[in-house]
Amino acid sequence: MAQGTLFIVSAPSGAGKSSLIQALLKTQPLYDTQVSVSHTTRNIRPGEVHGEHYHFVTKEEFTAMIAENAFFEHAQVFGNYYGTSRHAIEQVLATGVDVFLDIDWQGAQQVRQQMPGARSIFILPPSQDELDRRLRGRGQDDGDVIASRMAKAVDEMSHYAEYDYLIVNDDFDLALSDLKTIIRAERLRMHRQKSRHSALISKLLAD
Amino acid sequence: MAQGTLFIVSAPSGAGKSSLIQALLKTQPLYDTQVSVSHTTRNIRPGEVHGEHYHFVTKEEFTAMIAENAFFEHAQVFGNYYGTSRHAIEQVLATGVDVFLDIDWQGAQQVRQQMPGARSIFILPPSQDELDRRLRGRGQDDGDVIASRMAKAVDEMSHYAEYDYLIVNDDFDLALSDLKTIIRAERLRMHRQKSRHSALISKLLAD
Repeated sequence: MAQGTLFIVSAPSGAGKSSLIQALLKTQPLYDTQVSVSHTTRNIRPGEVHGEHYHFVTKEEFTAMIAENAFFEHAQVFGNYYGTSRHAIEQVLATGVDVFLDIDWQGAQQVRQQMPGARSIFILPPSQDELDRRLRGRGQDDGDVIASRMAKAVDEMSHYAEYDYLIVNDDFDLALSDLKTIIRAERLRMHRQKSRHSALISKLLAD
Repeated sequence: MAQGTLFIVSAPSGAGKSSLIQALLKTQPLYDTQVSVSHTTRNIRPGEVHGEHYHFVTKEEFTAMIAENAFFEHAQVFGNYYGTSRHAIEQVLATGVDVFLDIDWQGAQQVRQQMPGARSIFILPPSQDELDRRLRGRGQDDGDVIASRMAKAVDEMSHYAEYDYLIVNDDFDLALSDLKTIIRAERLRMHRQKSRHSALISKLLAD
């Protein structure tokens, strides 16, 4: 079984990353592509499914996992822990499934160090105006909130060059197609194909 | 202008490499993808076009080019010289066009050393039976000729793992689509996109 590929995806807020990943998952079967599910200590909310939206664990379980170095990265937000479990991702990759990890540049740096085979994709909005419009939202936020969002977006974008691939989300369908192209091309890489076609290769070289 | 990518393509005889490259070129405009045109000292034949089938040069010109280290690789066959000009390829790449170079594993090793940005693709036939059938051709060749072709094919295939990508030419349309996927994905790589979208990136990061 060929290992799946871990795809790290980062983007500034407003680039359309979440919509692209959601659309991608709808077109790919689960045995083919999945999104990484984080661990969290926060309470499960109505409609949420354990193992689908999050792996819900207790604070004791989470702390034990930190001690075991079980996380690629983790953070505390409003008193709750969130983390990306190395083991959960490796289990899925081992079944040959590609895993998408939606994470910021800091998380991306940490994951890249720990998993050099990961491929990373950065998504940019099509223009400054479009980014402004998306960050302003419905015009209900005050200037400080928008300025802070913009500063965060620029901070995120300043790390774009650390990524393997760049997609500009101008036309949504084209950007989605770009994402699929990257996944398919990575599956054609030698280490994946070598493992997938090992029986054929042995026969061809047996002469 | 983003540099084009040099794609090295190798395969054993009978894997369908030439048909795939021909079909690829028919679907891609010239300003987008081209095949590398070799230099040769042999006489031009009826129907051949200088600069399209070959760059036809004199022995003196060819020898001077060897002295200038102008070739990625060159060889002498039946008293005529054939070579791949570094300058001809670099000129086309500089215009942003991708160039395909149809070459064996020995040539591939030489080009890879001299141009580390090149991407290499190996094409395999779908089965031993199919390879046998293709190498036997129309059954007019004697056993020695076929055995020698087979030995050459196995020698070529024994180097498959040196390539970046592997395509198994089972279904022709699928193999062609794989080839296009690789080209498109390489265009989405950071160094290509960074150059293509430099104006957008400057604006987005100006804040």
